[in-house]
Amino acid sequence: MSGDTKKIPVIFEGTGTSSGKMRNDIAVKWGSGSWDLPTDEGPFHGGDSTAPPPLAYFTSAFIGCIMTQLRAFSKRLDIPLANCKVSARIEWVAEQEDKQPYVSSPVSLTLDIELDTDAGLDDQKRLVDAAKKGCFIDQTLAIANQVGHRLKTDDGWIDV
Amino acid sequence: MSGDTKKIPVIFEGTGTSSGKMRNDIAVKWGSGSWDLPTDEGPFHGGDSTAPPPLAYFTSAFIGCIMTQLRAFSKRLDIPLANCKVSARIEWVAEQEDKQPYVSSPVSLTLDIELDTDAGLDDQKRLVDAAKKGCFIDQTLAIANQVGHRLKTDDGWIDV
Repeated sequence: MSGDTKKIPVIFEGTGTSSGKMRNDIAVKWGSGSWDLPTDEGPFHGGDSTAPPPLAYFTSAFIGCIMTQLRAFSKRLDIPLANCKVSARIEWVAEQEDKQPYVSSPVSLTLDIELDTDAGLDDQKRLVDAAKKGCFIDQTLAIANQVGHRLKTDDGWIDV
Repeated sequence: MSGDTKKIPVIFEGTGTSSGKMRNDIAVKWGSGSWDLPTDEGPFHGGDSTAPPPLAYFTSAFIGCIMTQLRAFSKRLDIPLANCKVSARIEWVAEQEDKQPYVSSPVSLTLDIELDTDAGLDDQKRLVDAAKKGCFIDQTLAIANQVGHRLKTDDGWIDV
């Protein structure tokens, strides 16, 4: 007998408008929640450092997402977890020929996980494994995604 | 004659520690810069909503990163850009059997780009194309990444 399978959609939407030299005012919505999360750049890109750079948000998102799953699933799997600590190291490289725009690519992404728990190693591994599969960002990074880009023109939106 | 090629490493590091019911205090570093970017969850995960959820940061990061490249490369490509506006829609689905931990996966990622510019359509497309290739997050999402996970044990770190 097959169990009950639920599909829960999770849809985030956001809009950014340029302001300042490199600052972007960005509003993000999910359901009834909304957050103002501006970005800026430092001297490298000629910004004013009035807000975190985009990749700082990315790093926090990755750490926070796996931590949410670890804590939520410890309850569901009945594996005790008093506290946890997660460190991320994300390395990219930007390659630039002469003064051309650079081309960037990821080099490595690692998460170091410390669980404050009385659970044995097998249960700890089981919890981490469930957290990886539940982590929206981990799962998204693990596959090649087709990102859609549309550009607004006088004749409407076109795919670019 | 081949030109000068530079490789610029970009390394972000962060550490999160659990606090509150679902809140995580997360500190992120890049070079000499550091940012406190805590996450929390709402009622769905039993959190207190004291900070944005991880995926809100992810959404802002994605929007901000492409906007930085658009603005930086408009100068390098000499394509005028007065202002820009970017909207993102990111959809995931979490599938859950009975009370098991859910398994999540991305459904779609789209960026809608509006350029306030006198440039012709070909130049606008050239700018967006350069921005896509320069955007660290866009480039990372486009390929399947091997995310490394390590768990701290009494005998040191192990890959999990």
